[in-house]
Amino acid sequence: MTEHVAPVAVDAMGGDHAPGAIVQGAINAARQGLAVTLVGPEAVVRAELEKHRAARSLPISVHHASEVIDFHDHPGQAMRRKKDNSIRVCFDLVKAGAACGMVSAGNSGAVMAGAIFVLGRPAGVERPAIVSVIPGLKGQPLLLDMGANVDCKPVHLVQFALMGDVYARRVLGVRRPRVAILSNGEEESKGTDLTRAAAAALKRSRLDFAGYCEGRDLLTGEFDVIVTDGFTGNVALKTMEGTARVVGEHLKRAILSSTMSKLGGLLARKAFAEMKRRMDWREIGGAPLLGVDGVGFISHGRSDALAMENAIRRVRDAARSHFTDEIAAAVAPAEALLAP
Amino acid sequence: MTEHVAPVAVDAMGGDHAPGAIVQGAINAARQGLAVTLVGPEAVVRAELEKHRAARSLPISVHHASEVIDFHDHPGQAMRRKKDNSIRVCFDLVKAGAACGMVSAGNSGAVMAGAIFVLGRPAGVERPAIVSVIPGLKGQPLLLDMGANVDCKPVHLVQFALMGDVYARRVLGVRRPRVAILSNGEEESKGTDLTRAAAAALKRSRLDFAGYCEGRDLLTGEFDVIVTDGFTGNVALKTMEGTARVVGEHLKRAILSSTMSKLGGLLARKAFAEMKRRMDWREIGGAPLLGVDGVGFISHGRSDALAMENAIRRVRDAARSHFTDEIAAAVAPAEALLAP
Repeated sequence: MTEHVAPVAVDAMGGDHAPGAIVQGAINAARQGLAVTLVGPEAVVRAELEKHRAARSLPISVHHASEVIDFHDHPGQAMRRKKDNSIRVCFDLVKAGAACGMVSAGNSGAVMAGAIFVLGRPAGVERPAIVSVIPGLKGQPLLLDMGANVDCKPVHLVQFALMGDVYARRVLGVRRPRVAILSNGEEESKGTDLTRAAAAALKRSRLDFAGYCEGRDLLTGEFDVIVTDGFTGNVALKTMEGTARVVGEHLKRAILSSTMSKLGGLLARKAFAEMKRRMDWREIGGAPLLGVDGVGFISHGRSDALAMENAIRRVRDAARSHFTDEIAAAVAPAEALLAP
Repeated sequence: MTEHVAPVAVDAMGGDHAPGAIVQGAINAARQGLAVTLVGPEAVVRAELEKHRAARSLPISVHHASEVIDFHDHPGQAMRRKKDNSIRVCFDLVKAGAACGMVSAGNSGAVMAGAIFVLGRPAGVERPAIVSVIPGLKGQPLLLDMGANVDCKPVHLVQFALMGDVYARRVLGVRRPRVAILSNGEEESKGTDLTRAAAAALKRSRLDFAGYCEGRDLLTGEFDVIVTDGFTGNVALKTMEGTARVVGEHLKRAILSSTMSKLGGLLARKAFAEMKRRMDWREIGGAPLLGVDGVGFISHGRSDALAMENAIRRVRDAARSHFTDEIAAAVAPAEALLAP
């Protein structure tokens, strides 16, 4: 458990609340003994650190990166033109072994582009994916891909499943992950050409493949790894977020509807807070990249200090598991599984 | 408002709780003055009606159909082989003008097949769609298609938008519906070849087209008509259902977690009941078919008497609006909008 790992590289300039909230999150994490390297324009980052007297005694270092990619930048172009951008420098540190992994709340396309550009892909990986870790009723189901790959072929879904299985086992400690393909019905006759071809292949795999699951199964935790194309995955993730928010709004309105219910809400407020925490995306700590040769996490653009603190912990945990070592071997059978 | 319309044809044999709950729902609707024709094996339906003494004085008639399609039947095959099935006989009544519309909680594929087979499509309609009426924070957004068309071309999405606009105006009374395409991001650069081609066409249309919307916008009511392919639509709908259920489960657990919160829950229980009602799919009354030449509704397979009562009312309201008269004219510009 106490294996020494290099610090987590944190993009100090990524996200709506950077650098303030990012630096605060790094400080919170460092207070718990997690080593952090903050990456960004040194003067800016140091000025932010200066606001926190306690920071001096914590395991936090600063690594200079002169440029910043924002949300308007085209990911690929920005990665090439702004050679000294904070996202890329984070990955350079990971590549060099000076960081165990990185996290950024910035432009997610640029994070993926930087990961592919600097870290590269393990042998045999066709397309890296962004994994959403879902706060399930039980466990933490993985949903991938979350938007990196809008148009997918069967081999991509098959590789997502094989890689997701590795992550669920090695990082989340699920002994034998139940893997499913997201579809419009449970029956084999449902789905599209894409899902049917991928399902046929995964049936022949060594995974505990459960066939199709539906939108209603995403949050239950009955399935540990759920694969889909990036378009559907993105719609499903945002539908979950939006529905939870609207239900919460209905709850708020209900509580405020009468004096009696207001009193009830007051008495139950601790319970409500705990419920909110259970479903809080900030507890999840970001979305890991799968299929790149190192540990990278995309944190929510709206990340605050709590979200960043949790993300830093997840990066460290993922790095300690050395799950990336197993990816090449995991995806190797994909083509053979798809051959008739 | 009090235009006379023919009775609503109700498939007495469709759904998990047929015929008991269906007949009960018909009785509840008839008590409010809605005329109903129950369709199914006459002896079975009459035996069910006999259980309710009050039924004799209500505007309920029985129309014999000797066969029943169940959930295991292949929709198209069953429609051809079981020529006297209750779903088809419902549509025969609609076609003949003896019913203003129909509703079935049975095999949804068979309902769609029966609608196309018996009623046919208004001129120019490429593919009929199943519409999900969503209980939005405000209004009742329409999401289509819900699963009838897994593989869509741009012309289908464009026609869904044009037809959905008619339904929102004529049936739901939205003066100028805001129409959007469901996508993986708001920017024009997002989406797939399918969504981009449809969006370009809808921009040229007379609709109030808002471009792309995301999964998180489905429930807000900001958009009145949201179009997508049947695969994505089905995933999104079931994700909404599943998320609402899981949030409800979290809420229940939170309330039961301490004596204080239990007391709070007790005081707020009326408010919770009202909140539940607002999000209850049974209040929605089923999913209308769009693009067939008459009024047909698919009700949830788990429909109880309340769901069926509401569905019958919605069928009557939809029939009174004569929205189907406008569909052919509405879809006519689709091809031209898609031409470069």
